[in-house]
Amino acid sequence: MGFEVLKKDAHTHARRGRLTTAHGVVETPVFMDVGTLGTVKSLEPRDLKELETQVVLGNTYHLMLRPGADIIAAAGGLHKFMRWEGPILTDSGGFQVFSLAKMRKFTEEGCHFQSHLDGHAFFLGPKESMAMQRVIGSDIAMVFDECLPYPCERQRAVDSVERTLRWAQRSKDEPHADGQMVFGIVQGGVYDDIRRHCAEELVKIGFDGYAIGGVSVGEPEAFMYQAVDASVPYLPEDKPRYVMGLGVMHQLAECVARGIDMFDCVIPTRVARHGTAITRKGNIAIKAAKWAYDQGPVEEGCTCYCCRNFSRSYIRHLLACNEILGLRLLTIHNVWALNRFMADLRAAIDEDRFGAFLEEVRSYKN
Amino acid sequence: MGFEVLKKDAHTHARRGRLTTAHGVVETPVFMDVGTLGTVKSLEPRDLKELETQVVLGNTYHLMLRPGADIIAAAGGLHKFMRWEGPILTDSGGFQVFSLAKMRKFTEEGCHFQSHLDGHAFFLGPKESMAMQRVIGSDIAMVFDECLPYPCERQRAVDSVERTLRWAQRSKDEPHADGQMVFGIVQGGVYDDIRRHCAEELVKIGFDGYAIGGVSVGEPEAFMYQAVDASVPYLPEDKPRYVMGLGVMHQLAECVARGIDMFDCVIPTRVARHGTAITRKGNIAIKAAKWAYDQGPVEEGCTCYCCRNFSRSYIRHLLACNEILGLRLLTIHNVWALNRFMADLRAAIDEDRFGAFLEEVRSYKN
Repeated sequence: MGFEVLKKDAHTHARRGRLTTAHGVVETPVFMDVGTLGTVKSLEPRDLKELETQVVLGNTYHLMLRPGADIIAAAGGLHKFMRWEGPILTDSGGFQVFSLAKMRKFTEEGCHFQSHLDGHAFFLGPKESMAMQRVIGSDIAMVFDECLPYPCERQRAVDSVERTLRWAQRSKDEPHADGQMVFGIVQGGVYDDIRRHCAEELVKIGFDGYAIGGVSVGEPEAFMYQAVDASVPYLPEDKPRYVMGLGVMHQLAECVARGIDMFDCVIPTRVARHGTAITRKGNIAIKAAKWAYDQGPVEEGCTCYCCRNFSRSYIRHLLACNEILGLRLLTIHNVWALNRFMADLRAAIDEDRFGAFLEEVRSYKN
Repeated sequence: MGFEVLKKDAHTHARRGRLTTAHGVVETPVFMDVGTLGTVKSLEPRDLKELETQVVLGNTYHLMLRPGADIIAAAGGLHKFMRWEGPILTDSGGFQVFSLAKMRKFTEEGCHFQSHLDGHAFFLGPKESMAMQRVIGSDIAMVFDECLPYPCERQRAVDSVERTLRWAQRSKDEPHADGQMVFGIVQGGVYDDIRRHCAEELVKIGFDGYAIGGVSVGEPEAFMYQAVDASVPYLPEDKPRYVMGLGVMHQLAECVARGIDMFDCVIPTRVARHGTAITRKGNIAIKAAKWAYDQGPVEEGCTCYCCRNFSRSYIRHLLACNEILGLRLLTIHNVWALNRFMADLRAAIDEDRFGAFLEEVRSYKN
């Protein structure tokens, strides 16, 4: 178990790595598919295997609300509950408390909030989050943190990061599931010195990997890369680095060039449910009338089940009729699009042509 | 191409048969899965293959409204549009005009109506229905008929059946797709002599098979069997017989005992979307709280992908969260439940134990 850097790019900070978890090996850089409620929406475990998904991400906040810890415990953990035999990473709930929960009240022990579903009262702190992630039995648990908004005043960022660091220590000290790795999360908003401080203090505590959080919260894209650049130099070379919440191809490649190994995002599955296909030439609204008679595949040259078999005309018809199959076929395409993109990116590093790959990606409309 | 009776049961009118279509061989008695809008809801063609579905039913009325004849024609027919390589049977639209359309006005040429979707005006008669089924390119086309309600006064039934017979002749006389078989439909409500007359006149016209229509329109179950008994004796032995709209196990077996070879129904897919599993011990509302911790499969002993892998607890959780995967997994189970039931029924005839099978089925709560 652990992380191994297999190869470094000569011109950027990009690197090929291998993360060995209790449920299998992950080739990095990797994009992880979000399975919020114990399912990557509309897909079965056998689909994920076919689509070469390496890691499924479970949301501690959502799973705590539904079905709740007891039901997952009765199944023997999330792997058995959802029948996914590969690696699972769980977030800590910090981001959902920030983005979804209502009537938040923070204390030194965590956050009182009301469920976004029915207003039911919950409390989530480092202790509760780690207990839930222990029940879930994820291969990688994330520390409980406070996600800062954008924009955020400096003093608030300073105070919040100090608490996030105390929570990181507590998260580490709590008991974990057998073989469960724990990752710290660098916060600090747009303040480079606070990011650096947070990274350095997390490294002193010592984690199996480090995430960069609080990006993709509405800030301009340049600030996203700035947050990465402000954190990476202070993180150890021999541990995986993970930017949370990114799923746009050129952003993934830019972050890889800055030394990032792991990503996750709801984009591929969410936009599919809105009738949008992700392609390297940009997103396509397949529902548009212009595709009504189009006999071509969703994306030329794509090798997914959707593109091998069905026309835009057919997928558009399904979407127009609100047929579940339309959403599912687009989800299959989008998950494959991201997974295939990352496989190409890994091959580019392996074959000493990441620079050219990055240049090409910068021309994508995606 | 055509129908062959392979074996007759010694004690009932049950028979094993084989129907050869332009897109493959169908072992009868068969249950056909309804793919209203060019998809058996939530399932892919590869799922249907895995579930051993033999025939997909397309709805002429629905496909005429969405996506419309032009788009299906552009794809080269429904097989290519939905990528289903097996046999397709299309109904004529007569039943949907009866059950769905608004502002119906019948003439000698057919029926003016408004779409149930947006009130758009359409006209459907034998000519239009056969033209649409020709574009669809179904292996089996149904004549355009008037479906009588229950209850229905005798004189209305008499008049309607005469027109249905004229429409049957016209449906036969219209051009058909290459290799397309055409089935007549026996109507007549609860009036045995009208059913007999209709059957005899249809046989004079001569069809590749004969359906019994106007059942499962709200009448008591006994009237359903009465309609079958009143029609079958006047239909040729060497042609397939089809009761439209039935999908309850004991009703299928009872009709097979009366000499029926083919069935279709939306029940397996529709009840799945409402969270109901079909089992031989009755329907199960998987969403019920009592299954929250249940680690057993949806149906003990079932060999479908859903039952081989997932617990009631998990499926219930998915349904409670309105996750598409829950509906899909239950659809997989329900389609397999009916297909497996028909496979067992065929084996019972093959092995001279249909009588015992029928007795057992009568004890089912389904």
